[in-house]
Amino acid sequence: MATCDQNEAEIRAIIERWSEALRVRDLDRMMASYETCVVAFDATPPLQRVGIDDYREAWRGWLATLEGPIDHELRELAICAAGAVAFSHALVHIAATQKSGRRGDVWLRWTAGWRKLDGAWLVVHEHVSAPLERETGRAVLDARP
Amino acid sequence: MATCDQNEAEIRAIIERWSEALRVRDLDRMMASYETCVVAFDATPPLQRVGIDDYREAWRGWLATLEGPIDHELRELAICAAGAVAFSHALVHIAATQKSGRRGDVWLRWTAGWRKLDGAWLVVHEHVSAPLERETGRAVLDARP
Repeated sequence: MATCDQNEAEIRAIIERWSEALRVRDLDRMMASYETCVVAFDATPPLQRVGIDDYREAWRGWLATLEGPIDHELRELAICAAGAVAFSHALVHIAATQKSGRRGDVWLRWTAGWRKLDGAWLVVHEHVSAPLERETGRAVLDARP
Repeated sequence: MATCDQNEAEIRAIIERWSEALRVRDLDRMMASYETCVVAFDATPPLQRVGIDDYREAWRGWLATLEGPIDHELRELAICAAGAVAFSHALVHIAATQKSGRRGDVWLRWTAGWRKLDGAWLVVHEHVSAPLERETGRAVLDARP
């Protein structure tokens, strides 16, 4: 699915810039990828966050718990675009050090819905999650692809 | 975002048929919505399932743990389509009775990526999840929208 037309190349570049912004904890540059009315299904509660201010607050809160740079790697990225609509998905490796000193290292799943608005691709929907064990209700954070 | 062009009406109708098929546990009709190479980020492990046979097995295994009809309701469904690519997302309420007699009742988040192939919309990517509490690593299944 990951062909290389112009739209997909543009989206890939935005994803790479976002990933670089996360690594250096540049919240303003991260949020530049999102549309004002973004609907986010984040890895942590609530069920959804609606609007860029609410979603920015979630990212700000999470970044505030961490120290130092963040490792962020996408695996098996697929992008599917036509006209002014696209979606993308990937497996995501995130490793970071909490202020408590604990090192976190997880694999998550990431899906995004995109619209091209005034010539620029923006994320209008994002879904990030870990799978959960049906028996225990616990999130599985140590799965490796 | 939920405008009513022809593509979005077609996708909405497929979602309604899929939901009806789930309610009566008709696995064949459920699987008719998916493309052969679907990449699924399911609510439970593994991280991803690739291909319709693998994904069908996941649904079959889950349905086999249940008895009787399944309640399935979508809330805040949004569909965004252009040309032959679309994505959709919604909050999903699922209630069902396990063979053990226990009644399950959860809200999940659902995102789908669609392609129009030979004139018919098919799901090529699906992402279903519950949010997880960062402190405990437990899935939050009782959140209400």
